[in-house]
Amino acid sequence: MQRAQLIQNIFKKKSFLCVGLDPELDKLPTHLNRNASSILAFNKAIIDATREVCVAYKPNLAFYEALGPEGWIIFEETVQYIGQQHLIIADAKRGDIGNTSRLYAEAFFNRLQCDAITIAPYMGKDSVVPFLAFEGKWAILLALTSNEGSKNFQREWLEDRREPVWESVMKQSMTWGNPDNLMFVVGATHPETFARVREIAPDHFLLVPGVGAQGGDLQAVCQHGLTRDGGLLINASRSIIYASSGLDFTDAARREAEKMQKIMEETLKRGEKREIREER
Amino acid sequence: MQRAQLIQNIFKKKSFLCVGLDPELDKLPTHLNRNASSILAFNKAIIDATREVCVAYKPNLAFYEALGPEGWIIFEETVQYIGQQHLIIADAKRGDIGNTSRLYAEAFFNRLQCDAITIAPYMGKDSVVPFLAFEGKWAILLALTSNEGSKNFQREWLEDRREPVWESVMKQSMTWGNPDNLMFVVGATHPETFARVREIAPDHFLLVPGVGAQGGDLQAVCQHGLTRDGGLLINASRSIIYASSGLDFTDAARREAEKMQKIMEETLKRGEKREIREER
Repeated sequence: MQRAQLIQNIFKKKSFLCVGLDPELDKLPTHLNRNASSILAFNKAIIDATREVCVAYKPNLAFYEALGPEGWIIFEETVQYIGQQHLIIADAKRGDIGNTSRLYAEAFFNRLQCDAITIAPYMGKDSVVPFLAFEGKWAILLALTSNEGSKNFQREWLEDRREPVWESVMKQSMTWGNPDNLMFVVGATHPETFARVREIAPDHFLLVPGVGAQGGDLQAVCQHGLTRDGGLLINASRSIIYASSGLDFTDAARREAEKMQKIMEETLKRGEKREIREER
Repeated sequence: MQRAQLIQNIFKKKSFLCVGLDPELDKLPTHLNRNASSILAFNKAIIDATREVCVAYKPNLAFYEALGPEGWIIFEETVQYIGQQHLIIADAKRGDIGNTSRLYAEAFFNRLQCDAITIAPYMGKDSVVPFLAFEGKWAILLALTSNEGSKNFQREWLEDRREPVWESVMKQSMTWGNPDNLMFVVGATHPETFARVREIAPDHFLLVPGVGAQGGDLQAVCQHGLTRDGGLLINASRSIIYASSGLDFTDAARREAEKMQKIMEETLKRGEKREIREER
């Protein structure tokens, strides 16, 4: 999906919500059988319930690999079921030496028809650039993740560069890609850093996990992270897909997704008003 | 596989060779059909040819994911065919937030019966520790990789810690795991750093890629990296599995593997002699 299309979807739906499709057998609604085919049925039900209020879906590959080869078939069928009106992010956190990254890119972009893939940047430039060579496809680089472990390396300060590792990941990779093929993961659990992120990357889309079950503050993220293009994809997984374990799980998922969409709509409105004021 | 068993295998076989099983359809010997089932036949032939002279196999998941769901079945069957006498390393470079890493660990260790998995450390402690909780299983953390991109982040200097990122990865993670469940990837393309690696981690096994097609110097690595337990797993992929594209590909693979094994045997002998001298 091209950037222009993504932006258009955001303003049409008044939403920059991404729904994380991370299904686990033992968390499925209690009336569903505990087998792999239930996972596909569950995904389809969640997609149908949330399709109108979100612009992206993010299946995390771990949840599909855990099911064995059948999990990859479910992943493929889930991607097909989503269709082409939503950005599909393979949350795979891949990254390897050049010829190997190229294979991953071909697998996820061409074979599996995903629009984007998350990438771990530890191996540097030649592990990332193969993902930037596909028209209308995106590499989403881990910059500052939402978890506790982000302090171990990401937030450590680099002596020569006079910046923390995560800033160096953003700045260096911005010379490898551009706002049409490169996004960054910035966790909602660091709302204080979004202003700094926007100084570094005013135009790049940010994929923001950590709202919902992980406790990040949606409004604080919007306040500092939103751009005139939207510029954010805010992900929620567990808080939406497991909103209820009863027969009403699709209604509950829809309600949770709408709750977030409403906040996003308000934020987009405020952004537009601010722009009009600034233009005057 | 337990550490004691791995060490015993190394001294019995006089080898610390790891064969990388990275099959690509368009690089298969020319007489084989270009389809997925040829990949399994190719893997089995390479395994039979090298089984006696290596102690580990390292299939890189990218090459299997590229084949779609069938690739995962081939991966499973390859692992089963190797059996329990070799350390089986899933070169997957995974790593995610805690509950997701746990799923990856269960998939690779329990379901797929691998002994070890390579891990990208960027997300820090809680992304790594789930891989350390399985008896007789190993996390192999990327420390200093063999590729050009290792300079972008890994070799940058951390101000407060007074060390490069890769040393910090080793030192911090050594407080999370121990030499029985944690190894490190250190590329053969940095032979000058092996002495420093051994100061930091005298007892941990190192998985060393970059010998062979990538040009690393096997003897230099052995000289600085070998310990009294062996302590090294030196990987070669392309230089062995694609040693010939003709009907003689298994013989050629065996010859290349034996060539490396002979150097390893010499190195182990010299190590034993040095120890005897030191004991006197």
